[in-house]
Amino acid sequence: MKEQIHGGDVYRHKNVLDFSSNMNPLGTPPGVIKAAAESMKSVCNYPDIRYEELAGRLSEYERVPAEWLICGNGAAELIFTLVLALKPSHALLMAPTFAEYEQALRVVGCDIAYHELKEGDGYALTGDILDEILLHLDLVILCNPNNPTGLLAEPELMSRIVKRCRETGTFLVIDECFQDFIEDRDRHTKKNMLGEYQNLFLLKAFTKRYAMAGIRLGYGLCSNLAVLEKMQEAVQPWNVSIPAQAAGVAALEEEEYVDEARQIIGAEREFLRDGLRQLGFSVYDSRANYIFFRGPSGLVEHALKKQVLIRDCSNYRGLSEGYYRVAVRTHEENIKLLEALA
Amino acid sequence: MKEQIHGGDVYRHKNVLDFSSNMNPLGTPPGVIKAAAESMKSVCNYPDIRYEELAGRLSEYERVPAEWLICGNGAAELIFTLVLALKPSHALLMAPTFAEYEQALRVVGCDIAYHELKEGDGYALTGDILDEILLHLDLVILCNPNNPTGLLAEPELMSRIVKRCRETGTFLVIDECFQDFIEDRDRHTKKNMLGEYQNLFLLKAFTKRYAMAGIRLGYGLCSNLAVLEKMQEAVQPWNVSIPAQAAGVAALEEEEYVDEARQIIGAEREFLRDGLRQLGFSVYDSRANYIFFRGPSGLVEHALKKQVLIRDCSNYRGLSEGYYRVAVRTHEENIKLLEALA
Repeated sequence: MKEQIHGGDVYRHKNVLDFSSNMNPLGTPPGVIKAAAESMKSVCNYPDIRYEELAGRLSEYERVPAEWLICGNGAAELIFTLVLALKPSHALLMAPTFAEYEQALRVVGCDIAYHELKEGDGYALTGDILDEILLHLDLVILCNPNNPTGLLAEPELMSRIVKRCRETGTFLVIDECFQDFIEDRDRHTKKNMLGEYQNLFLLKAFTKRYAMAGIRLGYGLCSNLAVLEKMQEAVQPWNVSIPAQAAGVAALEEEEYVDEARQIIGAEREFLRDGLRQLGFSVYDSRANYIFFRGPSGLVEHALKKQVLIRDCSNYRGLSEGYYRVAVRTHEENIKLLEALA
Repeated sequence: MKEQIHGGDVYRHKNVLDFSSNMNPLGTPPGVIKAAAESMKSVCNYPDIRYEELAGRLSEYERVPAEWLICGNGAAELIFTLVLALKPSHALLMAPTFAEYEQALRVVGCDIAYHELKEGDGYALTGDILDEILLHLDLVILCNPNNPTGLLAEPELMSRIVKRCRETGTFLVIDECFQDFIEDRDRHTKKNMLGEYQNLFLLKAFTKRYAMAGIRLGYGLCSNLAVLEKMQEAVQPWNVSIPAQAAGVAALEEEEYVDEARQIIGAEREFLRDGLRQLGFSVYDSRANYIFFRGPSGLVEHALKKQVLIRDCSNYRGLSEGYYRVAVRTHEENIKLLEALA
């Protein structure tokens, strides 16, 4: 039986207010639900293995050539597929970070080094990582903003990392799945480097932006067509389902909805951060739609008594008991969270 | 761009009657469409990574312990996941057979031997394969009935293969995805050997049985819990989407619908076979819901002029131009197929 190491387990915790996964606080757009539901009429067909309509729309949305795009059964699948395509012998990950990078690398028996983010730096990524990007490294995976910390790296540092990786012949994945709700997104995405840097792969997802985690749809951007072709060889042809393709096409129309969510999150992140500080917790400088903090042990169980689910981060590599992550939700919901944690 | 080597490409062939993929001729049950559409309301959540409700129902349906079950994003994903879990160095496949076995084995750099099915045997699997199951073999994948031939192996031969594989320390996958519509299913499934043979894995799918290829849901049965655990480590936790889990639960209620489809297919298979023979084609002895035959080259293009899509089998290893596969559909549709092929 699969071990539940992640947030979002609303199946073993019924009727909770879920702050343990990080979705758009407005919920799934009705237009997305409708499009996916209507697509069910055609599920006697296999999905379009080239997801042509979705790729066309996504290409316009991201303003990149359609051939730079690859979609997956959630961004998580793409991590595995990319690792299978590259088969790295030596990789570098941050600690703490999203657990699936390590899980995927274990499948190919990769030797993994960890760049430890330090409490003293507020868990920020610093230039120290540049010294660890050496010739033997095949792959670096960075998450920006990082999960679970929500910290954004300086754009200039990220550019230096991209360049450094090219110098050492290292492939670099930047997981930008949590950039949807930050300010100054154009300053932070490394999309403008894709054309020049064939060693760069950006990971993105519909999951959080449109609150559609259950449908499974993620994508990657990369100008290295040989890598994308190897990825297609490492995965079944029908991995992106018909409802996922339909939902994706509909979701890309929802720009106002995402803008509205971004405004709510911007204000509510400050509200929640202040509230958590007033409760006496150490709150880190998240720029994402979730907040990472340190508090007393036992807080998950305490909140569950009030039917509120938060993410225990003690099982992240590099963290220990007393670290937590909470999503930024609507004002009323955030008040309930603060009450439950009090 | 993914190469379209499979049937079912209704996206590049609009408004065709699709005989190139093999679905339940009754189409997706309305109850399945409804359940999957309604599940869209909860897609802001991640899927249940343990798919507990589905596994419980499936355990009752298959009459096996729930812990012997593993679900995937279609049976195709499970082939890749199993290969990643086992990492075989030497494998044996039939030729011709389903292309994804080979694709998955290539991902781990496996050395692949092919047991050639012979035209002189009508492409039937014979006892000759037993001589090729030797100590160095890590994995054998058989498809029964085979794709694209539809031929069923003798149950006694299959039992001997299971036993032989255990003697040589070889893991055996039997893809039973096409057994849903055959007669005497209980005689052909190797489910009763699962308990005793920990080297056996049976692959099954919702795809054809309930005509829900676009939703992606397949499963495997195996009593070797260590193998299942390795498989879970080789795949993302959220691979089975919320609509797939909901559709699966609803589908298992549709026994009458599957029985009805089986009766139609039983009668229509004979009708189509006779019709194809009268057109002068060499028709093989399919027991599945599709028919494999040999005819003149150019038949795909010929049928497309009448808006009918059939499966060109020339790209299967071991076959060449002039081999085709057609699904068994409803009587009216089958008449149209015969007219289009005339």
